[in-house]
Amino acid sequence: MALMACTMILASCSFGSKSKSSSSSNYTTTGSAASGTYQGVIKNGRYRTSKSRGVTAAQNQNTFNLKSFESGLTDISKKVFSTKSYVFQEGQYLSKSTVTNWLGRKTKSNASGLNPKKGKTNGTRNPTYIQTIEEQDYMTQDGDNLKLHGITIGIGLNSVDYYKKTTDGPTYQQKISDAELKAYGQQAAQKVLKRLRQKKALKNVPIVIALYKQAANDSLVGGTYIEYNVNKGDSLSSWKTLNIKNKVLPKSSESTSSTSSDDNDSFDNFKTQVQTFFPNLSGVTAQAQYKDGTLSGMHITVTTQFYSETEITSFTQYISTAAQKYLPSGIPIDIKIQSSTDMQAFVYRDSGQKKFSSHVFDSY
Amino acid sequence: MALMACTMILASCSFGSKSKSSSSSNYTTTGSAASGTYQGVIKNGRYRTSKSRGVTAAQNQNTFNLKSFESGLTDISKKVFSTKSYVFQEGQYLSKSTVTNWLGRKTKSNASGLNPKKGKTNGTRNPTYIQTIEEQDYMTQDGDNLKLHGITIGIGLNSVDYYKKTTDGPTYQQKISDAELKAYGQQAAQKVLKRLRQKKALKNVPIVIALYKQAANDSLVGGTYIEYNVNKGDSLSSWKTLNIKNKVLPKSSESTSSTSSDDNDSFDNFKTQVQTFFPNLSGVTAQAQYKDGTLSGMHITVTTQFYSETEITSFTQYISTAAQKYLPSGIPIDIKIQSSTDMQAFVYRDSGQKKFSSHVFDSY
Repeated sequence: MALMACTMILASCSFGSKSKSSSSSNYTTTGSAASGTYQGVIKNGRYRTSKSRGVTAAQNQNTFNLKSFESGLTDISKKVFSTKSYVFQEGQYLSKSTVTNWLGRKTKSNASGLNPKKGKTNGTRNPTYIQTIEEQDYMTQDGDNLKLHGITIGIGLNSVDYYKKTTDGPTYQQKISDAELKAYGQQAAQKVLKRLRQKKALKNVPIVIALYKQAANDSLVGGTYIEYNVNKGDSLSSWKTLNIKNKVLPKSSESTSSTSSDDNDSFDNFKTQVQTFFPNLSGVTAQAQYKDGTLSGMHITVTTQFYSETEITSFTQYISTAAQKYLPSGIPIDIKIQSSTDMQAFVYRDSGQKKFSSHVFDSY
Repeated sequence: MALMACTMILASCSFGSKSKSSSSSNYTTTGSAASGTYQGVIKNGRYRTSKSRGVTAAQNQNTFNLKSFESGLTDISKKVFSTKSYVFQEGQYLSKSTVTNWLGRKTKSNASGLNPKKGKTNGTRNPTYIQTIEEQDYMTQDGDNLKLHGITIGIGLNSVDYYKKTTDGPTYQQKISDAELKAYGQQAAQKVLKRLRQKKALKNVPIVIALYKQAANDSLVGGTYIEYNVNKGDSLSSWKTLNIKNKVLPKSSESTSSTSSDDNDSFDNFKTQVQTFFPNLSGVTAQAQYKDGTLSGMHITVTTQFYSETEITSFTQYISTAAQKYLPSGIPIDIKIQSSTDMQAFVYRDSGQKKFSSHVFDSY
């Protein structure tokens, strides 16, 4: 509670007062956060960006992977570092060149490469296992400054390795099994932990390491975290398993996935209602996430052609009503309503809310 | 109050129950509307689209005009037909071919054309004055059916007429003065009113006609309604003047517009705060609307390059705080937070709300 109060003082005392001549504190935060979200760190009026900014974005061809890798990492951090007590800071201890070297193959000139050297093992090509690494820092108030409390590291592992035999040649794919991916990730996690502990600032803070299984590049939903490890020393503690599954709805007919048929039915009912609204067809798709076998949230996209602003307004109202009636209750759901070019309106129910809210993107 | 109750019964009794065998009522509405908005009409499970659907969209090269023409018309309707008592229906009395003919020039083969015949008057080319016409219907409950209570007609008038001398030739522009536009619009309104009264269903209902001044095609904000007329008979009553101005912020340096300097200052302060946040530049622009000289709302767009999902989350939080601190209070404001490709997050304060809400468009 004391920490929370400090955070709030930080937010209210310095925001926007860049010309302050006092040298006492040049830190502030991004503002009073909604419950269950972290505030971010601003230094000298500017957001404190990651020291390895852009590496993950450059490593990922699938933006769904990019988003779910980063927001999934924040979700894991929330299990360990309370949003009430800690402030989020983009990673400051791993530089762009460090991360880039770690993501490379191990070679004479890159001894720190976490991926295996080129070649074969037991007749099989050594794939690139580790696609990306991201650091998040969690801070507490220390007098006028912020002090590092702990860090979280996400390691993104390929379920499919995409590679070329010659620079301009075709792209080949090598599948990596779940067991192989996990075993390699755990070994890499141990190396990463040892290396982090060699940094003076990271000697004694809690370090969380989480393994993420990247989805294939053509997937319409990102990958998922499979396990994480909370450490005080320099050898890994026991892994905590996560049971998270992402699905795309509607299910393709050949799919034999384990999506609960109830969830699929309620989505299908919603979809049918929405699609009958206009004479022209509307596309309705969703990403659904399951935690421990239970539906935990949905991102729905509805695409149609609108002929007028009044059609957008009426459709949005209709979708709010249909969502309330047909979609599962008690979980966060958002629905983007798009024309071919732009988002036109938006319907959502946040975690803990009972009713859907909506907003039409109007224009003067 | 009785009418409101009927509307709500309509909404709750029929929505989604398409298989109802009773032939009593095949009308329903789009669902319980937020306060101050109309419900729309659904017939046999499908939205009742306009008989002249698509004409306005096809007539408008500037989507800002399209949106503000249609939502401005709804705003005028609200002054005459209470959202508590009436249900909105897309125009059912003017067909696509009727509207298309009316929008043409008057010729031998198109006697109903509302635009002047080709040629010159006093040495000046006769421009196309009337760019678009749109009808809205307002309904009440009548037993098991809906009954027309009144209609609203918007007439969109060119402030600039774009034309070609030969089919594949260059586009020329002819400016039309406010006085000329208004005089021509009023004459056309009288003709439209007479024609509408000849339709049996429209003989005795209130007819609202509103004149809209289209913005130029390259404008970053749409045009505005200049006046409207509420009629019971077949000759125009007195016009009610509207004093609405749309502005784009930040003001360009050469602009000598009458934007209140206070409003411009508060926007500039907000813009400066937002632009210092990231090392890379953020674009911050706004559409502002003034009614009777007072700022009545803003649509703000912030565009920047994001390197991670956590940057989007922190930026959104920061913008909520900055908006609360720097932007004018007591008016509806929405802020789109965009990357080069997509809307990433969204901050808004609706009419009557005190605090800003926000939503980040996440992905699994």
